[in-house]
Amino acid sequence: MLPVALPDTVRDALLAPLVDHHCHGVRRDDLTRSQFEPLINAGGVPAPPGTTHFDSPFGMGLRRWCAPLLDLEPHAPPAVYLARRAELGAGEVNRRLLAGAGVVAFLVDTGDEDIDLLSAAEMGRHGGAAADEIVRIEQIEQDVAATAHIAVDYLDGLAEELSARAARAVGLKTVIGGRCGLDFEPARPSTGSVIAGANRRLSDPKPPLTDPVLLRHLLWSAIDVARERGLPVQFQAGFGGRGPGLHRTDPARLSELMDALQPLGVPVILLHCYPYHRAAAYLAGVYPHVYVDVGLALPHTAAASARVMDELLELAPFHKQLFSSDCHGVAETGYLGALYYRQALGTALLARLEAGEWSAADAARVAHMIGSGNARRVYRL
Amino acid sequence: MLPVALPDTVRDALLAPLVDHHCHGVRRDDLTRSQFEPLINAGGVPAPPGTTHFDSPFGMGLRRWCAPLLDLEPHAPPAVYLARRAELGAGEVNRRLLAGAGVVAFLVDTGDEDIDLLSAAEMGRHGGAAADEIVRIEQIEQDVAATAHIAVDYLDGLAEELSARAARAVGLKTVIGGRCGLDFEPARPSTGSVIAGANRRLSDPKPPLTDPVLLRHLLWSAIDVARERGLPVQFQAGFGGRGPGLHRTDPARLSELMDALQPLGVPVILLHCYPYHRAAAYLAGVYPHVYVDVGLALPHTAAASARVMDELLELAPFHKQLFSSDCHGVAETGYLGALYYRQALGTALLARLEAGEWSAADAARVAHMIGSGNARRVYRL
Amino acid sequence: MLPVALPDTVRDALLAPLVDHHCHGVRRDDLTRSQFEPLINAGGVPAPPGTTHFDSPFGMGLRRWCAPLLDLEPHAPPAVYLARRAELGAGEVNRRLLAGAGVVAFLVDTGDEDIDLLSAAEMGRHGGAAADEIVRIEQIEQDVAATAHIAVDYLDGLAEELSARAARAVGLKTVIGGRCGLDFEPARPSTGSVIAGANRRLSDPKPPLTDPVLLRHLLWSAIDVARERGLPVQFQAGFGGRGPGLHRTDPARLSELMDALQPLGVPVILLHCYPYHRAAAYLAGVYPHVYVDVGLALPHTAAASARVMDELLELAPFHKQLFSSDCHGVAETGYLGALYYRQALGTALLARLEAGEWSAADAARVAHMIGSGNARRVYRL
Repeated sequence: MLPVALPDTVRDALLAPLVDHHCHGVRRDDLTRSQFEPLINAGGVPAPPGTTHFDSPFGMGLRRWCAPLLDLEPHAPPAVYLARRAELGAGEVNRRLLAGAGVVAFLVDTGDEDIDLLSAAEMGRHGGAAADEIVRIEQIEQDVAATAHIAVDYLDGLAEELSARAARAVGLKTVIGGRCGLDFEPARPSTGSVIAGANRRLSDPKPPLTDPVLLRHLLWSAIDVARERGLPVQFQAGFGGRGPGLHRTDPARLSELMDALQPLGVPVILLHCYPYHRAAAYLAGVYPHVYVDVGLALPHTAAASARVMDELLELAPFHKQLFSSDCHGVAETGYLGALYYRQALGTALLARLEAGEWSAADAARVAHMIGSGNARRVYRL
Repeated sequence: MLPVALPDTVRDALLAPLVDHHCHGVRRDDLTRSQFEPLINAGGVPAPPGTTHFDSPFGMGLRRWCAPLLDLEPHAPPAVYLARRAELGAGEVNRRLLAGAGVVAFLVDTGDEDIDLLSAAEMGRHGGAAADEIVRIEQIEQDVAATAHIAVDYLDGLAEELSARAARAVGLKTVIGGRCGLDFEPARPSTGSVIAGANRRLSDPKPPLTDPVLLRHLLWSAIDVARERGLPVQFQAGFGGRGPGLHRTDPARLSELMDALQPLGVPVILLHCYPYHRAAAYLAGVYPHVYVDVGLALPHTAAASARVMDELLELAPFHKQLFSSDCHGVAETGYLGALYYRQALGTALLARLEAGEWSAADAARVAHMIGSGNARRVYRL
Repeated sequence: MLPVALPDTVRDALLAPLVDHHCHGVRRDDLTRSQFEPLINAGGVPAPPGTTHFDSPFGMGLRRWCAPLLDLEPHAPPAVYLARRAELGAGEVNRRLLAGAGVVAFLVDTGDEDIDLLSAAEMGRHGGAAADEIVRIEQIEQDVAATAHIAVDYLDGLAEELSARAARAVGLKTVIGGRCGLDFEPARPSTGSVIAGANRRLSDPKPPLTDPVLLRHLLWSAIDVARERGLPVQFQAGFGGRGPGLHRTDPARLSELMDALQPLGVPVILLHCYPYHRAAAYLAGVYPHVYVDVGLALPHTAAASARVMDELLELAPFHKQLFSSDCHGVAETGYLGALYYRQALGTALLARLEAGEWSAADAARVAHMIGSGNARRVYRL
């Protein structure tokens, strides 16, 4: 899976256990094909009639690399793969794939709140790894909105719940980009506008919050908590569902907010970012508190992931890059996330070594930094 | 032209006849150098004094690959090429280049309405292929605006003409992006605003329509027709003339419209898309009804086209990609469109085979899907 | 540093002296590590505690390629490098690195007005090259605002100073993108709005100008002068500090202004542009008066610069591309700018030769055009 010409020290650094700083639980139950297919699609939708999501870069990667872990030949047909998956059972498949990822710690976004998904602790057990929690702040809001009756309860509830949940977590996460874009007004919203928003919200608390005023209030409240507790805040950017328009999730649109956050010293981690990963790498270079990873862009671009990684490496400082799989729904995502990360980084490093641009010692050192060292420092693991 | 190391099955799949699902007529008459040069420039303008459009990636590709079809050495100087072109005559040159493209069916955008251009049927005859029509809706509007006197005639005329023209076509095409950007209000415009717009329009019907209200009305009228007749709608995006600002033709800006169209089941095909082809590929992945191609980006990036194709393959589902040349003005564009498509896809497939990421059977299957299978399904050929 | 397989004629063309059409002065004094590090960071800020800007693509490139010029082994550790740099002294280091760049003429942006920086003439002397001046118009405004008392003085002063400074320069430069984005209203502002703006400005003339009305007035005044004198105008775009949001410096946002400028015949040169260099290349293709370079993107992407160059070559006409280093602050930037330019272009040309896409004669000719010929023509050197 790694290029054969890599020096041993670099190979060892790449194969060392990873900190997967952003992932989700995977389904604990056995899945039919019609359940499985939407889980390997970024839109979460079924493929059109007469087509299959296996006919995608991710699907090809899955057949190539996951099939052997299920005792099948590489490139096994989808039906064969799914039959073998059913035969082994979800528990065994999850154990093989999660353990195969070579991860030493999962930082799990627990915001999905779906009992069919493995919990953070279970992810750790299946993968033979430690597990810590990342709190998704929009999920906290959803919970508070569901139980509060008046604006003051809602606002107090948010503050309390953020604080309580953060106390048990290693980081916070926001999906504000997917709700209202990243081009929101960066300033903290006024108290009046927040109370007015809270009243509107409580009249209809069921749907996911999309009001930019309340989303900004939530975000700034989370930043306050993060600052107090020394926690980083993850921002979903680019690749990641349908939302309000891909271009509006370009992390470059966070520039003014990044200016505002720099004096607070709260680390910001830009997740996924594709196809705006070059802009994200640029931000990581010019803002001391900004970090970057390409997360699920690697397993989803699969055979083409080396270029995506290489584009991130064009500009991002090496002390600012992190690894994550964005493992989600099925354990194949976690396994392929780690595999394509190692393969893509290995390919990039080998190219630099063969061109004489880097020394092997530097390459090994950078592989350790990106694979786990930076995450240990930023999340204080 | 194809990488030599390709397995025969994959080579055969790449060399199989293509469906060119988006092209235009080429000039039937002999061209002087000052007529020829603007036709190989994306802006359609002459080169600055002392320079030539042959000093461009497309120009280099033309000299390399078209010259031998005109019995010249590869890399023939521009003057030699044009002299030989004149010697052979436009008819013979068009036949050699269009037949050399290896196309089984041309779907021709007939919106240019220029008698110097070959008709759809003539394109077919010159290229030894079938030919079908794609109706450019903005041209229908132009025709209707030229003859209508009052708003109600204009609106009735649009509906009738769209319906009548669609009855003979295999798809519709909009260039709304080049007129007002793709960041228009996605909702169907109100009747009142459309009538007001029509009255304004009829006071000055000559220039190409740029009023977003009427353009949206036209688009939604076309969508109604497309839905009724089961036709796909092509959207020009990215690369394609000067228009209102390249960034405003980023197909990501269509996200809300794509949300609105999904329940209608009208297939949408994003054309060209460069340099936003990664965003387009993403949309094709998350929207079941969205398709994508990079069209004229391949002949225009020429020697660098393999990377552009490979970037499309990063994320686009294989059942969602199509081939087109955007052949336009001179037959060289059609020949190079097909040639660089095959070369770029061949290079991409070989890389996946050599890395062990794909099987040869899958590579051949995907080449057939993108080259013709998907187009046959979507256009019901 | 160049690929070994390059034919001699192409190698010679690449190694021929360059016109560096956009650079700045470098520090004349000896620098401590805490002074040096921000000068190799695009944001100009120190690295976070426990990290170093040497752990960046630029830092790796510096250790690889500058170390030998200071008589060190490639990949020398940062501390060793900086110790040797101090030992040699800034003067000797500047001479070695600037002369090593192989530049025949520096066109120096003199807008930094920092006595610690080498002047244009000194840059020439240290680098064994000619030197000419590029006038940064926003610096002229700063000077005028500092001395004018009433609006009419301010406006007259701008016109006079622009004209006087342009008389000694070979080009003008604007950083309007970094001040208010490139998405400003393209029309010339009204006299009334300019006078109102001038009155506001004179009440607080110290900070850098960010008022879009006055910035547009300044730009249009500069365009008038450029037109009169036949000078080109450089526009900073993309990569280049923090500013108003990277996406707002996408040169595609200049499209309407480019439409307005075309009839005036004033050449426009888009600087840096990364990560929007594909959009910039597109503009250079469709607008006869638009030129493009990727400037400091090459030394900053370092080991990955070949792809950036190759992406520019995807679409930019060869008579529209220029070389610049954006040398700034430390002479390493100038040396690496020239080195990575040659290496990246050499890699791109070799790929085209090996694929049979270009002839060696064309490759050599294009290398001469981009390296110096186009700049000589556009700047009338």
